[in-house]
Amino acid sequence: MAVSQFAVIGLGRFGSSVARQIAGLGHEVLGVDKNVQVVDDMNQYLTHTVVADTTDEEALRSIGIRNIDCVVVAIGDDIQASILTSIILKDLGVKKVVAKALSPLHGKVLKRIGVDRVIYPERDMGVRVANQLVSPNLLDYIELSKDYTIAEISVTREIAGHSLMQLDTRARYGCTIVAINKPDDVVIAPTAEDILEEDDVMVVIGTNEQIDRFERGIT
Amino acid sequence: MAVSQFAVIGLGRFGSSVARQIAGLGHEVLGVDKNVQVVDDMNQYLTHTVVADTTDEEALRSIGIRNIDCVVVAIGDDIQASILTSIILKDLGVKKVVAKALSPLHGKVLKRIGVDRVIYPERDMGVRVANQLVSPNLLDYIELSKDYTIAEISVTREIAGHSLMQLDTRARYGCTIVAINKPDDVVIAPTAEDILEEDDVMVVIGTNEQIDRFERGIT
Amino acid sequence: MAVSQFAVIGLGRFGSSVARQIAGLGHEVLGVDKNVQVVDDMNQYLTHTVVADTTDEEALRSIGIRNIDCVVVAIGDDIQASILTSIILKDLGVKKVVAKALSPLHGKVLKRIGVDRVIYPERDMGVRVANQLVSPNLLDYIELSKDYTIAEISVTREIAGHSLMQLDTRARYGCTIVAINKPDDVVIAPTAEDILEEDDVMVVIGTNEQIDRFERGIT
Amino acid sequence: MAVSQFAVIGLGRFGSSVARQIAGLGHEVLGVDKNVQVVDDMNQYLTHTVVADTTDEEALRSIGIRNIDCVVVAIGDDIQASILTSIILKDLGVKKVVAKALSPLHGKVLKRIGVDRVIYPERDMGVRVANQLVSPNLLDYIELSKDYTIAEISVTREIAGHSLMQLDTRARYGCTIVAINKPDDVVIAPTAEDILEEDDVMVVIGTNEQIDRFERGIT
Amino acid sequence: MAVSQFAVIGLGRFGSSVARQIAGLGHEVLGVDKNVQVVDDMNQYLTHTVVADTTDEEALRSIGIRNIDCVVVAIGDDIQASILTSIILKDLGVKKVVAKALSPLHGKVLKRIGVDRVIYPERDMGVRVANQLVSPNLLDYIELSKDYTIAEISVTREIAGHSLMQLDTRARYGCTIVAINKPDDVVIAPTAEDILEEDDVMVVIGTNEQIDRFERGIT
Amino acid sequence: MAVSQFAVIGLGRFGSSVARQIAGLGHEVLGVDKNVQVVDDMNQYLTHTVVADTTDEEALRSIGIRNIDCVVVAIGDDIQASILTSIILKDLGVKKVVAKALSPLHGKVLKRIGVDRVIYPERDMGVRVANQLVSPNLLDYIELSKDYTIAEISVTREIAGHSLMQLDTRARYGCTIVAINKPDDVVIAPTAEDILEEDDVMVVIGTNEQIDRFERGIT
Amino acid sequence: MAVSQFAVIGLGRFGSSVARQIAGLGHEVLGVDKNVQVVDDMNQYLTHTVVADTTDEEALRSIGIRNIDCVVVAIGDDIQASILTSIILKDLGVKKVVAKALSPLHGKVLKRIGVDRVIYPERDMGVRVANQLVSPNLLDYIELSKDYTIAEISVTREIAGHSLMQLDTRARYGCTIVAINKPDDVVIAPTAEDILEEDDVMVVIGTNEQIDRFERGIT
Amino acid sequence: MAVSQFAVIGLGRFGSSVARQIAGLGHEVLGVDKNVQVVDDMNQYLTHTVVADTTDEEALRSIGIRNIDCVVVAIGDDIQASILTSIILKDLGVKKVVAKALSPLHGKVLKRIGVDRVIYPERDMGVRVANQLVSPNLLDYIELSKDYTIAEISVTREIAGHSLMQLDTRARYGCTIVAINKPDDVVIAPTAEDILEEDDVMVVIGTNEQIDRFERGIT
Repeated sequence: MAVSQFAVIGLGRFGSSVARQIAGLGHEVLGVDKNVQVVDDMNQYLTHTVVADTTDEEALRSIGIRNIDCVVVAIGDDIQASILTSIILKDLGVKKVVAKALSPLHGKVLKRIGVDRVIYPERDMGVRVANQLVSPNLLDYIELSKDYTIAEISVTREIAGHSLMQLDTRARYGCTIVAINKPDDVVIAPTAEDILEEDDVMVVIGTNEQIDRFERGIT
Repeated sequence: MAVSQFAVIGLGRFGSSVARQIAGLGHEVLGVDKNVQVVDDMNQYLTHTVVADTTDEEALRSIGIRNIDCVVVAIGDDIQASILTSIILKDLGVKKVVAKALSPLHGKVLKRIGVDRVIYPERDMGVRVANQLVSPNLLDYIELSKDYTIAEISVTREIAGHSLMQLDTRARYGCTIVAINKPDDVVIAPTAEDILEEDDVMVVIGTNEQIDRFERGIT
Repeated sequence: MAVSQFAVIGLGRFGSSVARQIAGLGHEVLGVDKNVQVVDDMNQYLTHTVVADTTDEEALRSIGIRNIDCVVVAIGDDIQASILTSIILKDLGVKKVVAKALSPLHGKVLKRIGVDRVIYPERDMGVRVANQLVSPNLLDYIELSKDYTIAEISVTREIAGHSLMQLDTRARYGCTIVAINKPDDVVIAPTAEDILEEDDVMVVIGTNEQIDRFERGIT
Repeated sequence: MAVSQFAVIGLGRFGSSVARQIAGLGHEVLGVDKNVQVVDDMNQYLTHTVVADTTDEEALRSIGIRNIDCVVVAIGDDIQASILTSIILKDLGVKKVVAKALSPLHGKVLKRIGVDRVIYPERDMGVRVANQLVSPNLLDYIELSKDYTIAEISVTREIAGHSLMQLDTRARYGCTIVAINKPDDVVIAPTAEDILEEDDVMVVIGTNEQIDRFERGIT
Repeated sequence: MAVSQFAVIGLGRFGSSVARQIAGLGHEVLGVDKNVQVVDDMNQYLTHTVVADTTDEEALRSIGIRNIDCVVVAIGDDIQASILTSIILKDLGVKKVVAKALSPLHGKVLKRIGVDRVIYPERDMGVRVANQLVSPNLLDYIELSKDYTIAEISVTREIAGHSLMQLDTRARYGCTIVAINKPDDVVIAPTAEDILEEDDVMVVIGTNEQIDRFERGIT
Repeated sequence: MAVSQFAVIGLGRFGSSVARQIAGLGHEVLGVDKNVQVVDDMNQYLTHTVVADTTDEEALRSIGIRNIDCVVVAIGDDIQASILTSIILKDLGVKKVVAKALSPLHGKVLKRIGVDRVIYPERDMGVRVANQLVSPNLLDYIELSKDYTIAEISVTREIAGHSLMQLDTRARYGCTIVAINKPDDVVIAPTAEDILEEDDVMVVIGTNEQIDRFERGIT
Repeated sequence: MAVSQFAVIGLGRFGSSVARQIAGLGHEVLGVDKNVQVVDDMNQYLTHTVVADTTDEEALRSIGIRNIDCVVVAIGDDIQASILTSIILKDLGVKKVVAKALSPLHGKVLKRIGVDRVIYPERDMGVRVANQLVSPNLLDYIELSKDYTIAEISVTREIAGHSLMQLDTRARYGCTIVAINKPDDVVIAPTAEDILEEDDVMVVIGTNEQIDRFERGIT
Repeated sequence: MAVSQFAVIGLGRFGSSVARQIAGLGHEVLGVDKNVQVVDDMNQYLTHTVVADTTDEEALRSIGIRNIDCVVVAIGDDIQASILTSIILKDLGVKKVVAKALSPLHGKVLKRIGVDRVIYPERDMGVRVANQLVSPNLLDYIELSKDYTIAEISVTREIAGHSLMQLDTRARYGCTIVAINKPDDVVIAPTAEDILEEDDVMVVIGTNEQIDRFERGIT
């Protein structure tokens, strides 16, 4: 695997979660924040931690940031610090800079100064939560393309006890059940005889519209 | 469909994203915030908006919150307001209260006072971003259970041009390719003859360990 | 006696009074506050004192709070700190947690998260002071039940010099004088011949209405 | 009854409780605070309310405070405002001024400038709560004098089922049971044959030491 | 001379001027302020200086304030601190407490709690400056009683060169010139032949009205 | 009389006292402050009042300040506003500008930019109060020159009942008693037979040293 | 002339000076600031003024900023607002955006997001003032290139009265006097006979080093 | 050269630029600021640096400021500190005090208290930038007198390729081209045959009006 050294700048709720998860996956992570208390709290979870003002090029240089393969700029609410930190990182030659944006305008500036990937965690999570609330049987989903989605959908009372043949998903809705997650096993590529039970969860692939119709059809 | 009326309390980055997405899916959404400016900015996207201090039971009652099926408490940084608002909502008889927690302790209080679902958007998004950074070919994923995952994995240069038979995923890694997302189509339940090309993305089901090995094996 | 170790968290006017009184009654009291100055001032009155942020579970654990039989959460104005501290205490297994509430809503949250007793010192004291102001001869009282009260009532000029027989309280008002507090002695279960004098105070038992009528009848 | 018009200045937790209780007892109460919001919230409970800065003699004069029989100065945290308001009230000729003190020094100033009664609600409530926590069977009490107390004490398991004769309180502890509060009645001046049952509460008169010994003797 | 030890509490512009002047007259002065910087700046001018919060009785006691004959409370803008400090000083037995008041109401409280002399420096200086501005020839004055004043009045061009006889002050205005301050000498009890010259200053005694008329008569 | 129109800028304790005294002496006074509340409070005492930022030349011009004979700059704590206001006043052609200084350095700047008279009210009042405290019999005084003073000195017990001849002030101390202020009259130019009584106050002229010796000699 | 419509965003000392000067030269200028007071003060000098938050794209669009040829972003101390405003301006299609930078890093961001010209007014003015202080005879200068400068140099006492021939600047220092600014006229291309007089100022062209030597040589 | 020791008080953007430039020209510079951080940052560029409150005469005296030939008061936003510092410097006998003014009124005070030169960096830079924006070919300029200017003007496309004779500047516009700055050389006193090329820059002397007409004539 190529990427192996990470740094996370800004250890708020989002940044500390990124940093702890990367460390938990067995990679080296350097955590940076300008607040001593915050850095102390993360000390036990990360490989290295340092207190620094990352809008000061000298400070960034002295912690050897240029040797790190991927730096996540997760600075919380200070747009100015986010921008200045990001431009220094790119100018120092950091290969991959991922930065959190607070607004589309902020994101546009980050892109323009050379940030490699701009993320909007609160906005994206909001979309995800909204989708699940609106379709309570939709447990999770991945958007494969603009049109296609894989969805994880609960078996409802209406269809519990039916076989896949009875349900006849492909014919009636156009989408395909590619797996059934049962309480103690996962049935991959299920056959027409497989029976859906009440605690099962289906993995369905199809166009957004097909899945939407299917989700409403089984309620 | 049962659920059809929503309210979102707290229209910060996360709350406004939830509210706009629900509205965009065609449902009625009432947006509530104590800040006039914030409410004005959301006015154009939501069915109704109102300025209110939601820690005041009278205020919540007067906007008819008890008739709403699902209320999302997305209050930003004020743990006290989040807790007091949530307990009033449950006491008023709101069926489903979903609340954002800032810390595990906050989440525990929310659970104890009767909140139906507690979410940690920044933490969850942090985990998701970390996973993608560590495994650059892993575009997205759904955790089906503690052990099983569906992953969306890019076809790498190493395997581009191979047929599924050549790759022999099931035998070598234990996981199954249930779909191939090609630039202009999605091949569901692909056959052994299907060829993987460089811009394709595979949808793979398997245990976490199988997928991890597969992801590393094709790099 | 079972209960013997106490802690008081929050050493403001109410908390410090609780703590000093318990210590004055000969029990061990641990005083906790996040303000150094406040802790220093109470040092001379209490068995132990410690400066700590009690919303931090680690801090509470390290001062051995779980071994204390009864903890009073007397945090002044910070509802959030009061709630978070209380839930940590109950989760750590403290047997009896008594917490001060600033409002009925706050009290409701405290109850819901498992606090054993919720007290409203300012509200209760307000009721007590109001009762005394409205009935100046009513020095103090205990509400035995919803209907019955024991009251400590001054002998007024109107009845000074009368014997209990002349007063005939039971027949005229329904209530009973169970004791007379004289300047240098207390006459318990007084006889019909006992004379009420101007500086005496009567202890009267009866329904609220009887005592009210009696109190107005002797003015 | 002589006193019939009241004013409460400062409508915080303590002041608003005093004001509401007096109003609930059927007397006219004027509520005064310098904060509009606070005054609005109390409006529904009190006869009259007014927003005023009570350190301004002209303001106090214009609301006719001098015609009120008894004014309670319940100002929260502002010692200066409490002192200045009180001296104006006495100079305007208010007959009875009752003021809340935040510290003994504050109380001393209030006394010196002529306040009729100084109260320490948090300190007094702290003492009361402490006494109850230390003696869990002691439900409530009145201090008749420096030595004598009336106490409301729960019947413990140890003595439940005993008659008063068996208990022989007078001989063994020196104190007298003047009433027994039973779930559905109050037995005044109980006889030796009366039986104490588990949910009963005794009303006991005696010296502090007698009651203390009794309370410990029955545990 | 009896009085010989002084303390000044509050070393602002007024307090530091009092303290420096007393020290300059050869007396021992203890300067007290709660601000370290202020105390340091006065260190070179006074016998002793100390940093203390004078609303804390213990602090005042520990600096031996009770042995000082006369304490000036010159606290700048904090009415509460001025009152609390003054009552502690009187209770500790300080013989003479002189306190600066910011308003008549403040002054009334100070009097009521036992302060020996209340002064209003800004108000008094304002009156003095106003009198001089309105009557530019009036250099300074002492109010002997409600009616009588000694005034120091410049010789105007109109009367320069005249003898006292020509001026005939007693007959024309009723007041008496008791001294003439000449550039190089003071003529006490001048005779009718003494000539007034342009740079001379007259010392005049009379009723306020006489002096007013005289002052206007010579302009 | 020449001077007849005044303005006072800055209506704090000193400024408002100056303004009210001038108005009380029958002159027109314009009161100016940037604080609306302060101006409203003074409205009843002064001829005209106006709310203005006096560091804005246009504002000063528009209230016609240039036509006023004498302007007192009594701005409280803002040295910058005091300086800028003063220079505008002089540039607009105000004949007499009197300004209060907070420090000698501030006073030096005021002099340099052309202010006609600089006053230090707190410092001067401090000196005056200090002199009186150190010499309790010295009620008041005027410094005629660097050497000569007129003092108002109480008759002490030691000299009460003596005639001026017995006291022989001129011979023993060098100073002269030019008047005796008796409770109901003032004796100007007293004779050797005049008797000093206990409540009398002497008006004495002499050098500082003579008066100091006299003051100490009669104690 | 091509450029004819200007806008200046941020009307502090620098911005207002730019705006007033452009307006004084006869061009249309739109002044924009988010502070009402500031905009009001500039109203009289500029063609149009508007109060707006320029980090809000909608606000900028609605004032028609896209039709303006040249916009100067002179925002004072808020780096974030400067960056966000600038990127909106470029995205809206403004042809020429000139922005003030507070630091080299700020300037680098501005360049990267497409600002056409970045200026550092305080830094550039500091350099200019420093040069003049170090060489008091150097009144002003233009840097033609890295090496060549035109300088305006006072005639010193040492060379007053000399002809250009006597001075022989070209031979001795290498630089050329291209004009002599005399009190009432400017002599362009002066001849060898022209005499330098004490109040004259020379315009000299040469390399930096030549001019430096010349400047020191004539002192 | 006479002047050789400099101090700069106030190391903001302007002050630090002045200080660094003087130091870069080889002179001794003492940098003074009351902010430790600011002083530390400048330490590497200047001969000496010191942290001091320059409104304190003692502080200025102790750093030997009186021996410095030229002091620049570049204090940023605090008019009061600027004035007080400047008056102390002049009183201590500093020969040349140059001070930055924030407004004409501030400048007037500085002049009045004796400052030798008052500068307005933001205003002057604003004028310079405005002139260049309005005339894009005008690269820079020096105002020789109220009427005459030397300007550095780009050769436009319209005149590129013309000889000076063809252009005939003196006849058509009245102004004179005294030098041509070519990419690799500067032609001083060019002849009629010299050809203007596109990247050349002309140095032109003339009246403001002549240069303005010339600048417009060649566009």
